[in-house]
Amino acid sequence: MRNIMIKLEYDGTNYHGWQSQRNAITVQDTVKKAIKEITNEEVNLIGASRTDAGVHAYCQIANFKSNTKIPIEQLSYALNSVLPNDIIVTYAKEVKESFHSRYSSKSKRYRYIIFNRRFPSPLLRNFSWYIPYRLNIEKMKMALIYFKGTHDFSAFKSSGGSTKSSIRTINDISLEQCYDKIKIEVEANGFLYNMVRIIVGTLVEVGLEKINPIDIKKIIESKDRLKAGRTAPPQGLYLIRIYY
Amino acid sequence: MRNIMIKLEYDGTNYHGWQSQRNAITVQDTVKKAIKEITNEEVNLIGASRTDAGVHAYCQIANFKSNTKIPIEQLSYALNSVLPNDIIVTYAKEVKESFHSRYSSKSKRYRYIIFNRRFPSPLLRNFSWYIPYRLNIEKMKMALIYFKGTHDFSAFKSSGGSTKSSIRTINDISLEQCYDKIKIEVEANGFLYNMVRIIVGTLVEVGLEKINPIDIKKIIESKDRLKAGRTAPPQGLYLIRIYY
Repeated sequence: MRNIMIKLEYDGTNYHGWQSQRNAITVQDTVKKAIKEITNEEVNLIGASRTDAGVHAYCQIANFKSNTKIPIEQLSYALNSVLPNDIIVTYAKEVKESFHSRYSSKSKRYRYIIFNRRFPSPLLRNFSWYIPYRLNIEKMKMALIYFKGTHDFSAFKSSGGSTKSSIRTINDISLEQCYDKIKIEVEANGFLYNMVRIIVGTLVEVGLEKINPIDIKKIIESKDRLKAGRTAPPQGLYLIRIYY
Repeated sequence: MRNIMIKLEYDGTNYHGWQSQRNAITVQDTVKKAIKEITNEEVNLIGASRTDAGVHAYCQIANFKSNTKIPIEQLSYALNSVLPNDIIVTYAKEVKESFHSRYSSKSKRYRYIIFNRRFPSPLLRNFSWYIPYRLNIEKMKMALIYFKGTHDFSAFKSSGGSTKSSIRTINDISLEQCYDKIKIEVEANGFLYNMVRIIVGTLVEVGLEKINPIDIKKIIESKDRLKAGRTAPPQGLYLIRIYY
């Protein structure tokens, strides 16, 4: 059997997230259906990240085992011909039998876009979090350092996640302002449920001067979800890279 | 009577353009309806540019005469509270009685986004023209100079426009490539029907090496629409500025 890895890009606006669900359209089900249409096989499609409803991906990695004879260089085109236009396969590759898009990944990188202006953006309404209040960007930047490194991120985890340990390592976290957009990127060896969105929500509280940058250290140490900020909305979040 | 100028930003995807139409939802009608909801007046709303179906605006200027008593600094908020979330008023100002958003304008600036990659973009599908072929960017840049200045642009006009003269002055035209995006901007004292989209379509023919940069001069001189390239699709076009 072949083990096939695909790279996916999608606009998550119209999907109830990656993960298969009864009575809801998800990215995983839509891609599985496309694979079935071209190979006639019901595959087990494994995604590297279970993106939530409304979350986008510039680069989601998935893999599936298949007996299809379709040459690998034709597979993306075949899948794209049956996929809706808000999901695209940008790359396909045959990989070792042992490759597992989730378990084999070493780290993941997410981007979050905040739109910070007096009035909301019609063009970015599905692609950013609109915040009309003045944000202290310097304080938000000062807060970043406390997130870096290996910590128990229980304070930055929504209930409902399936992982046992809450210890994760953030290798990189950055914040950049460009006119009315604020771009936050976080790379870690793994993420707890809603972790990026709670980090962003907490950074916004810092920007609003409700939390001091240095308090991030205490919030992490508290392991108490109630001490961190709100969960930022999904439409500002993008899965941008999986590292193997 | 007050003469009120408003600045509008909109995602044109779900509208049949700016201009009022029977049996189709347009931006003009939607904004007029919002004005009626808050002032109870049926106003004559004049837009600086009649953007086509699917075309977006970062900055459309419109004006209307009204007897409303609503303070100008509250008007944007009031309108936004009743407008759908793909249209936003970003600014409102009381202007001289003689101000006419279209006739008073000195020039306009449009942006066009081409998405140039092997596979289409799910995230930019409503906001760019997807071209999967290799484009010779240097040649496209070389072609720009021939558009600059005052010319009879009949070759770059679709039939159906209402203006008498086809002579226009392009003050500025530029092209920039950033990874898989190509950004073209054109500023002129006025535009013929579909002029930017035909300029972009012709530049793409240059990029595909079907037209030589120097041939642009001959195409302009021919005044023959059939000599220019195709009309680029609307979803890549943005009205970005009106100068007064």
